[in-house]
Amino acid sequence: MRKILLIGAGKSTSYLIDYFLAKAPMENLKLTIGDLDPQTISEKVRSHEHCEVITLDVFNQTDRKKAIEGSDIVVSMLPARFHIQVAKDCITYSKHLVTASYVSNEIRELDAEVKKKGLVFMNEIGLDPGIDHMSAMEVLDRVREQGAKMLLFESFTGGLVAPESDDNLWNYKFTWNPRNVVVAGQGGAAKFIQEGTYKYIPYHKLFRRTEFLEVEGFGKFEAYANRDSLWYREAYGLHDVLTLYRGTMRRVGFSKAWNMFVQLGMTDDTYIIENSKGMSYREFVNLFLPYSPTDSVELKLRHYLKIDQDDIMWEKLLDLDLFDGTKKIQKAQATPAQALQEILETKWSLKPEEKDMIVMYHKFGFELNGVKQQIDANMVVLGETSTHTAMAKTVGLPVAMATLQILNKKITTAGVQIPISREVYQPILKELATYGVTFNEFEVPYLGYNPDSIAG
Amino acid sequence: MRKILLIGAGKSTSYLIDYFLAKAPMENLKLTIGDLDPQTISEKVRSHEHCEVITLDVFNQTDRKKAIEGSDIVVSMLPARFHIQVAKDCITYSKHLVTASYVSNEIRELDAEVKKKGLVFMNEIGLDPGIDHMSAMEVLDRVREQGAKMLLFESFTGGLVAPESDDNLWNYKFTWNPRNVVVAGQGGAAKFIQEGTYKYIPYHKLFRRTEFLEVEGFGKFEAYANRDSLWYREAYGLHDVLTLYRGTMRRVGFSKAWNMFVQLGMTDDTYIIENSKGMSYREFVNLFLPYSPTDSVELKLRHYLKIDQDDIMWEKLLDLDLFDGTKKIQKAQATPAQALQEILETKWSLKPEEKDMIVMYHKFGFELNGVKQQIDANMVVLGETSTHTAMAKTVGLPVAMATLQILNKKITTAGVQIPISREVYQPILKELATYGVTFNEFEVPYLGYNPDSIAG
Repeated sequence: MRKILLIGAGKSTSYLIDYFLAKAPMENLKLTIGDLDPQTISEKVRSHEHCEVITLDVFNQTDRKKAIEGSDIVVSMLPARFHIQVAKDCITYSKHLVTASYVSNEIRELDAEVKKKGLVFMNEIGLDPGIDHMSAMEVLDRVREQGAKMLLFESFTGGLVAPESDDNLWNYKFTWNPRNVVVAGQGGAAKFIQEGTYKYIPYHKLFRRTEFLEVEGFGKFEAYANRDSLWYREAYGLHDVLTLYRGTMRRVGFSKAWNMFVQLGMTDDTYIIENSKGMSYREFVNLFLPYSPTDSVELKLRHYLKIDQDDIMWEKLLDLDLFDGTKKIQKAQATPAQALQEILETKWSLKPEEKDMIVMYHKFGFELNGVKQQIDANMVVLGETSTHTAMAKTVGLPVAMATLQILNKKITTAGVQIPISREVYQPILKELATYGVTFNEFEVPYLGYNPDSIAG
Repeated sequence: MRKILLIGAGKSTSYLIDYFLAKAPMENLKLTIGDLDPQTISEKVRSHEHCEVITLDVFNQTDRKKAIEGSDIVVSMLPARFHIQVAKDCITYSKHLVTASYVSNEIRELDAEVKKKGLVFMNEIGLDPGIDHMSAMEVLDRVREQGAKMLLFESFTGGLVAPESDDNLWNYKFTWNPRNVVVAGQGGAAKFIQEGTYKYIPYHKLFRRTEFLEVEGFGKFEAYANRDSLWYREAYGLHDVLTLYRGTMRRVGFSKAWNMFVQLGMTDDTYIIENSKGMSYREFVNLFLPYSPTDSVELKLRHYLKIDQDDIMWEKLLDLDLFDGTKKIQKAQATPAQALQEILETKWSLKPEEKDMIVMYHKFGFELNGVKQQIDANMVVLGETSTHTAMAKTVGLPVAMATLQILNKKITTAGVQIPISREVYQPILKELATYGVTFNEFEVPYLGYNPDSIAG
């Protein structure tokens, strides 16, 4: 029996666990699930003959070390900041490690030791990061092998609500960690390159500088820039590329409406509001508006944000009961972002019968044999149930597949890594396709942002 | 001879040094000036018989300790972050300490030791903080002694250019540390109270939420909110006050124009621009605008910031040569804020013959004997020369006066403190008046922000 230790059984792990248990008889696997609160794991999983569920507090050193020592490979689905202790134990006991998180500096520094022990520490192998890396590198390697010189790479991902459950004015619901949505884009200007020109967007303009995208059968989307587009030059070998842009996808109109919260200062997570507990939604809004003894909160907000009487932006705010004087914020010592999250969660939570949707869109512009060309590739994955979401599928399956590939010695290159080598992405993309996770590719005219080559 | 050690002889110390040297014969003072680069100190000062100038690197522990041990009192005019080592040595050798800087947490933690040794560590005794504390407390103590209940306190300070030297469209020149001006307001939302309601302004709205002020003989000013108004509740004993607001004064129109830089993202100091050295001003502006192969930087900026053709905002930008393709940024590895500062310094530096101006404005609203009343108090100080600036005068004189008062045992209360007690502010305000640093007081009708007491 090959023993897999899965640490953390949060909501992104449904497909991951199903995959291991489905493969267990044939692949001779024993899955141990260690979680702080194992009661949340379904009876079906708990009673599976190839599965063992244990209570595991990752900060309990003895228990953690014992669990890791007794396994053949470790999958950590903990929040990223908790990986480091697990990673160090994996080195101590010579175990492979798989995570869906960005490689932290701490983890990166383990590379030499990991290599010395011949271990595979695979990170960023979920959706974004994960499927984005693999699907992009597959195309990049293919066209570069043919001799193409890359000109443009743009990549967009969105965790959205499925069309059949898309029934509010914002065309958005939380399908993942709401907190990450509320503070998205904070922590520094967005940086990217267009036609060789560096571009910087401050947070308060981020949601007003969107790009549009069309996905056949699913309509129009928009995207705002991610913070770190320049990082991908290094990772993907795109040093001379003229345009490099990474973005987050939303339905058209979301960003312009979200920008109202940004402008008001409601997404700020750096200070605590005085007396947040029991504050009405209306009072919360008024914190960010000029004082007036007579003017209404409504009129002050309309004037401040220049919202015309017939502007749909206004309906979007009403849809959230933002001016309700009776609805109260429950959280004490809340930051503005936390209070806003609380308000949004009452309206934007996915109901049990509702479904989510993952959309990814890549653009590859290149010159091959003297001709400028472009390939667009997109992927849409729809959720099946409220536990078997598209998010859980696209995050969990690549993690699970990589784990089995490592166990089966198909992925063998040692070191702290992300899935950008053929050895990794080829078998996993192939297997993902059998689960309906596929990209549609289109050859489109290459336009770039300067189709007539006008000197800037 | 009583020995004063002055550490740091930067540009705010001209009046401070003159004061000590003028008082030296009668008061039996010996002034030692320790500076990293004492060459910059004038010959007149260096050759004064009561003055000694030494090269002092505050990070050289031996030299620093020796200088402090040999003095009776230490005045630190170093940047605030360098005070702590000086302060610790002052405790070791039982020396009093005077600074014009905000009390840091590190310095505050020394309070018990300072008291145990019977020392006076006087901080925040420059202009702002300094004269603001003293002049406000003088009025607050006076009216409260009469039985007044405070309703409102607002306080505004501006370091500006004197009317006779006010000759650019921005009505502004750097009369102090330009860097502080460029990054002013960053690091968190501004917080204040109006009529009992908390108000929070995010940085990107700070310069659009100004208040107006009129100073007789000097015309109209505007003010944007400082970050930390709520702090003054504690310090000034204003716990139940309905309105509490601190602001920075500018000439009317400055803030709206400055907001253009904020909106573009040019005041960001958190990341480094790629290839800043040799970048033209025009290219710098274009970093913050959407890419276009054809549209001009000018039109893109006009459209982005919605600047009409006949808007004076546009002239203000032209005044800075912001669209010049030949003028280059010199600084390598510059942040946007550093590049902007470089551009502004070419236009906003005070010439040797030009003069600065300090303006301070307080509003005190209170109820006394059942009647709501208000006292406004303002101070204007004009610079004399480019070395003897109003800034140097208003920062340096209170520091110097406090130092002498401590030496002469007129200020004796031990501890880490700021000048809010009568013992401190009374003699210093009185002496400042002899130097022309005085407040004009006006009784005005109390309006507050809710004159008709309409329930919010």
